[in-house]
Amino acid sequence: MSKTTENILQTIYSPEDLKKVNINDLPQLCKEIREYMLNILSKHPGHLASSLGAVELTVAIHYVFNTPYDRVVWDVGHQAYVHKILTERKTQFETIRQFNGLSGFPTPSESEYDTFTAGHASNSISAALGMSVAANLNNEERKVVAVIGDAAISGGLAFEGLNNASSSPNDLLIILNDNDMAIDHNVGALNKYLVKITTSPRYNRFRYNAYSFLRKHKIIRDNHKGIFTRFTNSIKSLISRQQNIFEGLNIRYFGPIDGHDTKSIIKVLSDIKKIKGPKLLHLKTIKGKGYLPAEQDVTTWHAPGKFNVDTGERVVGSNPMVRYQDVFGETLVELAEEDEKIVGITPAMPSGCSMNLMRDKFPNRFFDVGIAEEHAVTFSGGLAKEGLKPFCNIYSSFLQRAFDEIIHDVAIQNLPVVFCIDRAGIVGEDGVTHHGSLDIAYLRCIPNMIISAPMNEHYLRHLMFTAANNQTSPFSIRYPRGNGNIAEWKCEPKVLEIGKGRKICDGKNIAILSIGTIGNEALKAIEQAKNDGIDVALYDMIFVKPIDMDILTSVAKEYDKVITIEDGTINGGFGSAVSEIFSKNGYNGKIKMIGIPDKFITHGKPSELYNICNMDSNGIYDAIVGKW
Amino acid sequence: MSKTTENILQTIYSPEDLKKVNINDLPQLCKEIREYMLNILSKHPGHLASSLGAVELTVAIHYVFNTPYDRVVWDVGHQAYVHKILTERKTQFETIRQFNGLSGFPTPSESEYDTFTAGHASNSISAALGMSVAANLNNEERKVVAVIGDAAISGGLAFEGLNNASSSPNDLLIILNDNDMAIDHNVGALNKYLVKITTSPRYNRFRYNAYSFLRKHKIIRDNHKGIFTRFTNSIKSLISRQQNIFEGLNIRYFGPIDGHDTKSIIKVLSDIKKIKGPKLLHLKTIKGKGYLPAEQDVTTWHAPGKFNVDTGERVVGSNPMVRYQDVFGETLVELAEEDEKIVGITPAMPSGCSMNLMRDKFPNRFFDVGIAEEHAVTFSGGLAKEGLKPFCNIYSSFLQRAFDEIIHDVAIQNLPVVFCIDRAGIVGEDGVTHHGSLDIAYLRCIPNMIISAPMNEHYLRHLMFTAANNQTSPFSIRYPRGNGNIAEWKCEPKVLEIGKGRKICDGKNIAILSIGTIGNEALKAIEQAKNDGIDVALYDMIFVKPIDMDILTSVAKEYDKVITIEDGTINGGFGSAVSEIFSKNGYNGKIKMIGIPDKFITHGKPSELYNICNMDSNGIYDAIVGKW
Repeated sequence: MSKTTENILQTIYSPEDLKKVNINDLPQLCKEIREYMLNILSKHPGHLASSLGAVELTVAIHYVFNTPYDRVVWDVGHQAYVHKILTERKTQFETIRQFNGLSGFPTPSESEYDTFTAGHASNSISAALGMSVAANLNNEERKVVAVIGDAAISGGLAFEGLNNASSSPNDLLIILNDNDMAIDHNVGALNKYLVKITTSPRYNRFRYNAYSFLRKHKIIRDNHKGIFTRFTNSIKSLISRQQNIFEGLNIRYFGPIDGHDTKSIIKVLSDIKKIKGPKLLHLKTIKGKGYLPAEQDVTTWHAPGKFNVDTGERVVGSNPMVRYQDVFGETLVELAEEDEKIVGITPAMPSGCSMNLMRDKFPNRFFDVGIAEEHAVTFSGGLAKEGLKPFCNIYSSFLQRAFDEIIHDVAIQNLPVVFCIDRAGIVGEDGVTHHGSLDIAYLRCIPNMIISAPMNEHYLRHLMFTAANNQTSPFSIRYPRGNGNIAEWKCEPKVLEIGKGRKICDGKNIAILSIGTIGNEALKAIEQAKNDGIDVALYDMIFVKPIDMDILTSVAKEYDKVITIEDGTINGGFGSAVSEIFSKNGYNGKIKMIGIPDKFITHGKPSELYNICNMDSNGIYDAIVGKW
Repeated sequence: MSKTTENILQTIYSPEDLKKVNINDLPQLCKEIREYMLNILSKHPGHLASSLGAVELTVAIHYVFNTPYDRVVWDVGHQAYVHKILTERKTQFETIRQFNGLSGFPTPSESEYDTFTAGHASNSISAALGMSVAANLNNEERKVVAVIGDAAISGGLAFEGLNNASSSPNDLLIILNDNDMAIDHNVGALNKYLVKITTSPRYNRFRYNAYSFLRKHKIIRDNHKGIFTRFTNSIKSLISRQQNIFEGLNIRYFGPIDGHDTKSIIKVLSDIKKIKGPKLLHLKTIKGKGYLPAEQDVTTWHAPGKFNVDTGERVVGSNPMVRYQDVFGETLVELAEEDEKIVGITPAMPSGCSMNLMRDKFPNRFFDVGIAEEHAVTFSGGLAKEGLKPFCNIYSSFLQRAFDEIIHDVAIQNLPVVFCIDRAGIVGEDGVTHHGSLDIAYLRCIPNMIISAPMNEHYLRHLMFTAANNQTSPFSIRYPRGNGNIAEWKCEPKVLEIGKGRKICDGKNIAILSIGTIGNEALKAIEQAKNDGIDVALYDMIFVKPIDMDILTSVAKEYDKVITIEDGTINGGFGSAVSEIFSKNGYNGKIKMIGIPDKFITHGKPSELYNICNMDSNGIYDAIVGKW
């Protein structure tokens, strides 16, 4: 597996070069691409298993379609590494996910081959449909291809796209990359349905062959509207006992075919790209394909970190501190042991948020609803309405999907759903689509919503315990990606007073009001400022809403310099809440607000990103000692 | 039609009474209910056509199910008037949609029969599934019924619910109330599919009859897991050539049957309520059923206002001023005539937002995507990516559904989609789920987003013209429900400088910064305050973001009393934006913020609601002259 001669791959810079490769040599090219990716990703960590499963389909797409004139829209996008390698970015590939390097997701500002933002699941069909309809209106003969996985297609947005695919003239092709996996195993009825199609492919194979035959012999023509539909309907009547869900939605269905048979994919793509109207090609693929350790444990190898290619041994990080997600996962099990009303809900992230611990312990009280954040929240509302205590865990940036459901299906009724918001704040290498920047701002405008953030592992446990004992309101707890800083994290959880913060240290020159784990950076900055003779007080507010008015009142009275610190957007966030109250009451001092600025933040190491946002201890120190 | 003896209806207070009625008398009861509704709604306006279409199904549900122990979840909820009449609220029915009266939508705080918030489409399946799964975990023999229309079921959230319906043990029954209509005609592939099912009901009828026969003769039993599924599959193999989409999702399908045949519905419901697991009953209904004018023009009669029951003549309001929605609709056509890149997108609201004018003039450049706000936004993103200029019109409170798509599929790429946000601010009688309270706050945290609001019809035109000429950023324009106040509203539109406000009047004591049409209330209050010798300046900011820093700087310097006014939530909104800047720069005065307070606002006349929020001219006057 180690070093091989990369004869074909080294000749390829762009899809133009790819098209010169003999079709019989493409399997060899695919092998070389896999080796290339494995070698680089073993040293420069990234998403592995998805891209290994998408090698042949990516090669086939760029072989058949005229990219970038033709558009390819990748759903989610962590399967698009092969696409990046083939589209003028091979030499930069080892910079992937690094600051100033390639993004881990398709990014239009990076390359014209990356046609649309990817990162959040299920948007590709709607986006590609828009592009295809626009091509039609602009009288362009452009083809548009959406590539979507079987997990992402279960999201509501994808269904809305499918439901609208036949409404306006377009030539959209949807490629369903079906590997039966999300990051964890895929769930839901549609997934079971897709498995069923595969086990009885007779009709589909027959149908495709018959169609090709008739078209080849000019018995039917593509541009003869209606004929193809009548043709397929009649074949259906003759041969099949099954109508296809996609055809029920007026989308022509082809497949399933082997997604690792490059020649077959190319043949089918070449044929169906000429067909007018929306169509779907169903490819069966294997996540992690071609690298045995990944094939055997795709969840681990979704994003494995560094590893030894030859042995398949992963280089596991040595941080002795617990991850926040594990504090959540273990504490949830503890609480659930004491209170049988507690249930856990996750949209396709049992490993990512460590709710797999709840799944293993209380399978009946654990609900993985698939990629369906909206359903996760409304379903939690229904559970809460009947007296259960749902802990609904969703990453901050994905919770945006369920914004209306939080308002309409939870907050209006004041239902005690507990929102555990993982990956809040800057997340690092995943970049712009994954930073959890906005949750404080978008939750703060919702009446009845309690918003909290722990400064450390103990307070995450306290807040979860407090939420489990709160039966009056929706309760959100935001906490970051990564590790904590307390070795003895498993304290006795206690009920906190809702809306009460705490003083961490006294100081007479400046007061810092902070929320969440970023308070630890403030502590470092305060130590540093002592050397300059500046004496700074620190308050850990714990709650953004309701906010501790006693602390605000006394701080406003005692200090004419106040700094607010949050790991979230300044616009409308925690600092904004403080400034509203100070402005209403009249305040003669100044507030400096530290947080994520009003722009989209790139990818890179968290330390690099905190630094460019002036949100690390140095940035806070500068604010303390700087001009007021 | 006028006055009849209401023999049966007058005996009914609750479902308990209903159950005492002989099944043969139910058609007569349904007739009486229609007359009762028509008589009252002709004088006290409300939603009419939907409830007329749901009389028989509502009677049947409460006849068969043990409500309120069994749960009924109404989707959207404007079809639930009959439900309200039958569940202890008949005598209050004439207060519907009025301040302190019944809500126009199911409202849990109003009655235990109203099990879940309704108003925004497509949530019923997920909510009811949560209730049904909870019943199962709580060991309750409770039945849960979701009633959803064929328009609402096209929303992504509904699909996510369907996709999860078979994942956990539950006894959910979904009743699909299929009248082939949203407020306007229904669209999308699923809708066409439902029509197709109806036209070939042979298989379904046979299947249901066969099932009943076999069950009756104890050849199969409900509690014998798996048998029923195998049974249906084998029937399918034998008789049908069509697989049902719902059965593809593991939901047992029954129907379609006539939704106005009370006895048949009761018979089917009595049978299938005993069946374990998720199931769907498809009823074909006629919107407006039983009242000819409504049957013939259901869009107009969705919410007709006052009318003469006998003649079918509507009492049309006599406001001489144009509605804001018509300013939008007509201006869009004007712009589209000049610029062929302009296209219009609406999720199921062509009449509601007056985009029907665009539909009639440029059908190829008009897209009604059905109830699918998420798709509407991502689709608009795709259109914009290819150089078109999408004007995407969504009511403020419904736009919440597309919050993530605005961020991920538009703002990150800085695509110039124009969001025309109708029904912004307090909307009146539709109440808590429909107020457009939050949009300024939830849009303000999104980088790249331009946020604007016109003070009057002219500025709505100017802003639309400005947006059409802006090709750099997403651009949102919020404006209210209802009429404007300029007779000569059709001015020449002009390009405004983005981020620049204007001074409306000078004053030396206090400065008011206002955004949107509420500035007109401020003008009245300023007039009033003159009599008290208080001299107030007014600035119409036009833009919330970017905000006019020149105005803010000079106001901060010249005034120590500033009032901010907005028709939206104070938390995180426009006033909050002002207070952030003042706090950062240091400000020695006070800001009073007028806007929607941090709680959910009830229903009633707009004037009543503005009054309780202190947002009318009296409230503003009080702020001016009150204690500072």
